[in-house]
Amino acid sequence: MSTLSSHTDSLFAARGSAQEVEESSALAPKFDSDGLLPCVVTDKNGGAVLMFAYMNADALARTIETGEAHYWSRSRGELWRKGATSGHVQKVIELRIDCDQDALWMTVEQVGAACHVGYQSCFYRSIPVGEAVSAGSPALSFAEAEKVFDPRTVYGKN
Amino acid sequence: MSTLSSHTDSLFAARGSAQEVEESSALAPKFDSDGLLPCVVTDKNGGAVLMFAYMNADALARTIETGEAHYWSRSRGELWRKGATSGHVQKVIELRIDCDQDALWMTVEQVGAACHVGYQSCFYRSIPVGEAVSAGSPALSFAEAEKVFDPRTVYGKN
Repeated sequence: MSTLSSHTDSLFAARGSAQEVEESSALAPKFDSDGLLPCVVTDKNGGAVLMFAYMNADALARTIETGEAHYWSRSRGELWRKGATSGHVQKVIELRIDCDQDALWMTVEQVGAACHVGYQSCFYRSIPVGEAVSAGSPALSFAEAEKVFDPRTVYGKN
Repeated sequence: MSTLSSHTDSLFAARGSAQEVEESSALAPKFDSDGLLPCVVTDKNGGAVLMFAYMNADALARTIETGEAHYWSRSRGELWRKGATSGHVQKVIELRIDCDQDALWMTVEQVGAACHVGYQSCFYRSIPVGEAVSAGSPALSFAEAEKVFDPRTVYGKN
């Protein structure tokens, strides 16, 4: 797979005017100052937001070419094929890019669960919204009733 | 509204251990080095990802307290009440936070359309995924057939 990164240059077009970036069919992603592009990941079944992560050019190229989700792990500082450790891989169903081409939305078929804590989605808690919260710090409520897997079993740590 | 920002301190809990951040009901968001938290916004009708934006502490506090979406505009460097110019406001239906509390997922009721280009969603183009793209830069396809509004009319520019 080491040849993939060598042709990310030809995979992405040069960025033109705002009009070109927004209205044309040229893929011209804008990576941030760290070389990253934020990516929203939703579940093909039900549409929930499963996770939020970042891709660098290499991760995006590998995702496009293999149809399997790859990210850049900021905490580990390395290319991250989702599910490499847990087996919880993601098959890409659809990949979209936004108006100014600085964010991605990927719909996936998720094996197992997306979140390392054990829930289906990383977004398993809700923040109460409305005037009642002004008295102090609002208490989160758990939107997912239970974990899909036990992280101690899958990752082998306590 | 200027009093709101004065109590963001009491609105957010101090961050404890990873265990506490992930498993408790204390709202302890982690803003990045620019003081921002990424926010994924989906449509209560149909579940599409409408846009991706950032909140600072003040924007998050105002969103929680008013139930109307507020962001931090990085391009303008100012608090941004969504729809202030266009009228395309967002009523917050649900607000969730992720495992490590460094990303938000907000479900909204969208008036008009979310994208400044005129489409319902900012993510109106798809990137083809699969082996066929390896020959060169892949062509985006338009996933939304037509614009919801004409930005020249709404924003008064060409």
